[in-house]
Amino acid sequence: MKFPLGFYSFGKNIGIKDTSLDFAVIYSENRCQAAAVFTRNNFPGAPIYVGRDHIKDGYLQAIVINSKNSNVATGEQGIQNSYQICTELGKSLNIPPKDILPSSTGVIGVPLPIEKILNACSTAKADLKPGNLDEVAEAIMTTDTRKKISYRTITNQAGEGVMFGIAKGAGMIEPNMATMLSYILCDYLPESGDLQGILKRVVDVTYNCVTIDSDTSTSDTVVLMCSGVLGSIPDDVFESHLKEIATDLSKMIARDGEGASKLIELTVSHGRDDGQVTKIGKSILNSPLVKTAIYGGDPNWGRFVMAIGKVFDEPIPYDSLEIQLGGISVKGADTDTKSKLADYLKSNEEIHISVILNTGSFQKTFWSCDFTEGYIQENAYYTT
Amino acid sequence: MKFPLGFYSFGKNIGIKDTSLDFAVIYSENRCQAAAVFTRNNFPGAPIYVGRDHIKDGYLQAIVINSKNSNVATGEQGIQNSYQICTELGKSLNIPPKDILPSSTGVIGVPLPIEKILNACSTAKADLKPGNLDEVAEAIMTTDTRKKISYRTITNQAGEGVMFGIAKGAGMIEPNMATMLSYILCDYLPESGDLQGILKRVVDVTYNCVTIDSDTSTSDTVVLMCSGVLGSIPDDVFESHLKEIATDLSKMIARDGEGASKLIELTVSHGRDDGQVTKIGKSILNSPLVKTAIYGGDPNWGRFVMAIGKVFDEPIPYDSLEIQLGGISVKGADTDTKSKLADYLKSNEEIHISVILNTGSFQKTFWSCDFTEGYIQENAYYTT
Repeated sequence: MKFPLGFYSFGKNIGIKDTSLDFAVIYSENRCQAAAVFTRNNFPGAPIYVGRDHIKDGYLQAIVINSKNSNVATGEQGIQNSYQICTELGKSLNIPPKDILPSSTGVIGVPLPIEKILNACSTAKADLKPGNLDEVAEAIMTTDTRKKISYRTITNQAGEGVMFGIAKGAGMIEPNMATMLSYILCDYLPESGDLQGILKRVVDVTYNCVTIDSDTSTSDTVVLMCSGVLGSIPDDVFESHLKEIATDLSKMIARDGEGASKLIELTVSHGRDDGQVTKIGKSILNSPLVKTAIYGGDPNWGRFVMAIGKVFDEPIPYDSLEIQLGGISVKGADTDTKSKLADYLKSNEEIHISVILNTGSFQKTFWSCDFTEGYIQENAYYTT
Repeated sequence: MKFPLGFYSFGKNIGIKDTSLDFAVIYSENRCQAAAVFTRNNFPGAPIYVGRDHIKDGYLQAIVINSKNSNVATGEQGIQNSYQICTELGKSLNIPPKDILPSSTGVIGVPLPIEKILNACSTAKADLKPGNLDEVAEAIMTTDTRKKISYRTITNQAGEGVMFGIAKGAGMIEPNMATMLSYILCDYLPESGDLQGILKRVVDVTYNCVTIDSDTSTSDTVVLMCSGVLGSIPDDVFESHLKEIATDLSKMIARDGEGASKLIELTVSHGRDDGQVTKIGKSILNSPLVKTAIYGGDPNWGRFVMAIGKVFDEPIPYDSLEIQLGGISVKGADTDTKSKLADYLKSNEEIHISVILNTGSFQKTFWSCDFTEGYIQENAYYTT
């Protein structure tokens, strides 16, 4: 595993809920140009308010994250707590609090155990290790079953640099500006310096195309930090690597959806525009009936027709509509074809669906997972 | 059980899928004024096309229904089959085919076993029994576990009349003009004769306020038939009885949702208008995280906050927002209150939720059910 230069981090347990890692800090020895996108939920968590404030000037030097408690719906005290965390960590790292972005993820509506967190902030400097971001990837997990890490090496005249991304998220996932939490760090800057523009474009075709359960989290945050210690690279090179990493992490989130047994990748193509394609893509991947059929290996293709048809304001001509599962056309499937479709669904952990609207030339890919008893069991007793 | 005058019906098994009742006819000896509302799904079933055609003149004399096969996504042949069913039944009953409304419900995308159905149509006259609508209520069931019947007696100077309603539906339920299938028959006419206007108003606050799984069926149909043999009653009396019956049937549908263990009744009040209240009501009752928490008796109230907050275009001031479960306020609940909330959820089969927006004075009630492993199991293997 390769890390970008000058980044230090750690994850540790401070006893927020149990004995798993629940607190992490990422620190760059160089002040970084940075960009972030946040949830569109109207009741965002306290850290979102503070993060929006601190990212305003386009610079960050550290990120502080706790899991197991989201600091959402905790009122003015919650916001003060988030500011205080940055202040205490800033003292330890000897950087201004406003160069720190705070994140919290976990249960909603419970006050943070603020003393535990402030103690951990005050001793943070001594805990930092070079690179070490896989430990952070573990510390930010809640119902995730796996760490989510993706990185690429990128070479320019100054040497070999790294773009490194981590993410967490498994439920309450239909991001609308970002996914649950994701941090992407890089040695390089894009030549234009337009981190925010590039991040927004990439998020729109990666994290914003994931849905696990149609529920939009109050904590969604994606942060990009670029130290620029290896200089700049062309925007298109920067953006294509960022897109690869964000796509990897988006698929990992979908594959690790609560209770999931399968990753679903849906491409909606030959559509009129982004609006039409996105409404239909989300309608299919948010349909419990589509997702339970994929879980059970039931070639019940009528459910795809239903899910496309229930987008009332985007009527699609039925005769030219194509729907394929694993490359097999489903409309009007005979017994033999249904048996092939059932085989395809049952024997693959990655299900590829193609929906061809034939209303234009726009195309987009979406990710989700199947819907199983595991989701119900995990969420019926989450806080009890 | 009391039936309206002059209505005859039967339900029988004709072997469409198994040995349960799967075919039904309702016949009135008097030609009836009638109104209907249908699904807004863009790929409606073949019977919807024919039903829209036949209801145009505002009159019906019979309804023919098969379950176990919806005749949806079956192309031009499917539509011809629906017309042919009306023709054959018209011959047997000696009425014009255009006074018959056909319905089909069940699996999508499989051609109707048309010979079996035409045979049953040709002998229908002999099968009819007076009243007998409970047999029809059974014959139209698919994944329903219970018959859904509601009626009221209404007295005017001509004597005692009856308004009688039946319905079916348990999955693929977020109706947008109507629910799965419902037929309401009455001895009376409303004085204004405006059946369609009354039906639309009632459907909007009853069937359109039910969601089981956010999936809008391709077959939704509500039909109202009024013989008028006992004359007319004032519109407000007619409409209030119709609303009572439709509310009863809506709650029965929600309570019998696939896999459901609890009925959820949500009232969103003090909202700005119908648009705001409906978006927020549906967002809460379509949230898998809200519905699994109710199933598990988990007082995880943050999920209500999330579900209200994810209606991006309707931001609600947080401080004046009220959320109550069984009359208990949930925001910022302490340990003691959480334990009361858990008790309430665990010890009741009807869960009452009140959300007070404090943005105006509009109010509406919505119904749904909890989300359990039973839904997954029922839908993972539906056609296999």
